[in-house]
Amino acid sequence: MRKNNFSEFDLIRRFRKQISTDASVFKGSGDDCAVLRFDKKHYQLFTCDMLVEGVDFTKRTDLRLVGRKALAVSISDIASCAGLPRHAVVSLGLPRWISLKQVDRLSGGLFSLAKEHAINIVGGDISRSDKLVIDVSMLGIVEKNKLCLREGAKDNDFIFVTGPLGGSIRGKHLKFTPRVKEARFLAAHAKINSMIDISDGLTQDLGHILKASAKGALLYEECIPLSKESRGISDALYAGEDFELLFTLSPFEAMKIIHSKEFHFRQIGQITKKKGLKLVKKNSRIVSLKAGGYDHFR
Amino acid sequence: MRKNNFSEFDLIRRFRKQISTDASVFKGSGDDCAVLRFDKKHYQLFTCDMLVEGVDFTKRTDLRLVGRKALAVSISDIASCAGLPRHAVVSLGLPRWISLKQVDRLSGGLFSLAKEHAINIVGGDISRSDKLVIDVSMLGIVEKNKLCLREGAKDNDFIFVTGPLGGSIRGKHLKFTPRVKEARFLAAHAKINSMIDISDGLTQDLGHILKASAKGALLYEECIPLSKESRGISDALYAGEDFELLFTLSPFEAMKIIHSKEFHFRQIGQITKKKGLKLVKKNSRIVSLKAGGYDHFR
Repeated sequence: MRKNNFSEFDLIRRFRKQISTDASVFKGSGDDCAVLRFDKKHYQLFTCDMLVEGVDFTKRTDLRLVGRKALAVSISDIASCAGLPRHAVVSLGLPRWISLKQVDRLSGGLFSLAKEHAINIVGGDISRSDKLVIDVSMLGIVEKNKLCLREGAKDNDFIFVTGPLGGSIRGKHLKFTPRVKEARFLAAHAKINSMIDISDGLTQDLGHILKASAKGALLYEECIPLSKESRGISDALYAGEDFELLFTLSPFEAMKIIHSKEFHFRQIGQITKKKGLKLVKKNSRIVSLKAGGYDHFR
Repeated sequence: MRKNNFSEFDLIRRFRKQISTDASVFKGSGDDCAVLRFDKKHYQLFTCDMLVEGVDFTKRTDLRLVGRKALAVSISDIASCAGLPRHAVVSLGLPRWISLKQVDRLSGGLFSLAKEHAINIVGGDISRSDKLVIDVSMLGIVEKNKLCLREGAKDNDFIFVTGPLGGSIRGKHLKFTPRVKEARFLAAHAKINSMIDISDGLTQDLGHILKASAKGALLYEECIPLSKESRGISDALYAGEDFELLFTLSPFEAMKIIHSKEFHFRQIGQITKKKGLKLVKKNSRIVSLKAGGYDHFR
């Protein structure tokens, strides 16, 4: 009985048309986080992410990893904006099959990642539910001059990623490290023009940057780092939930971060004035890429 | 296959033991909202509430009312702390049976209540789910000198409610008005010692105030206002989701609000030094009340 043939992005567009915001909102729906005015030097970041049993994990997934991931995806959203995560609330829908021991595993995974990042868990809500549901809402903080958004990519910007891509399907999506340190390093050492985390897949998320910035891009197959769990370039291009950061900055600024001893940022392409997304293959042929990827709703 | 015989409150206690917070948190988990340090004169309030199909509403409930309620319960949490709601994010788990028209009803109910309260909807997340799930996280703001919490009830405080009780089961829980205006009026005109919204039932929620304040209370059956949908005093005492505010203040302060022409606050009892909750019945007999009410999790 499938009535809906609309996508996640259709709905988001539809909702955004009905929403207006006041001057307290610097940037509302449409980026990884909402950006709210906070004080003279900082913005506050606000984001939420929901995980659902049967969609994002199965009954057999280790609940410690599920709890960890529930927090990690929101941390990754804050990192995309170059912010620091600070506070979170957690809503739980708990099914009847869950035991106290399993709840402890779930909360243990979440609390220990919170501790690693010095995030304050300040509240929550517990409800009965047929399937296990976890929704985390998170607040973060970012210096005004360090804020990164999807929009802002410039002609000839170099495109970078923070790590190898394509491992999510083999379990990396449950164990990834949100790239907060990398994001804070980048924002401190260079002027980043645009940034996003790869949650829907490289082409889809690069597509979000290109759309928000009204640009095109050229990717080099040879330069795209594949994780050892990846089954090839198409995993890296289309599979979601890598949670590496994808960012662009001018060639001049790139020189400031490319030789970092602490981090290994890999250049994978360049922003073009001409719209569209193209891939230079290993055999030097150039092909057009469609901005496909994972739709969390379909 | 019911493995769990633990309650919502058992779990909350269990979680709170594992959580520590830093100096940015004035009051963490355990009240209607988390209270975060914001600026010299204000605290920020942060809360979340999840509604689940089959638990909080059925497939046949008008989705406009479901969307409205999803926002209203969080507004009510902010009102309990005497704050103003400001920003919200919305996570949706959408089942396959839902049509675009139904999504529009859901979002319509939510957006129109947001507009009434000048709340900025600044983001969200959409996921696939077997049952419809809506989780709203909300930020609010409150002047430091107006903040109300559950703790703080004093000996001999008068106990008030903002309106009649006991109508939730006949549908009021879907149509209630969050008492923001009342809360703001109260905080502006008197020193409120403790406040909570009635979401679990009068005895349960008064029990939360008494526990947090280490006090007891005496209620007068004759004074408890029943809504016209109520089936009697036990609806008023034990049924959840009235969403009226329950507050206490000194007899001297009560004089400042009792003759308000704008609002009709009803005194229903008094705080006692001696612990325990007692009811003076219409026949003048005094009975002990157990702090029972609705457990959203069982």
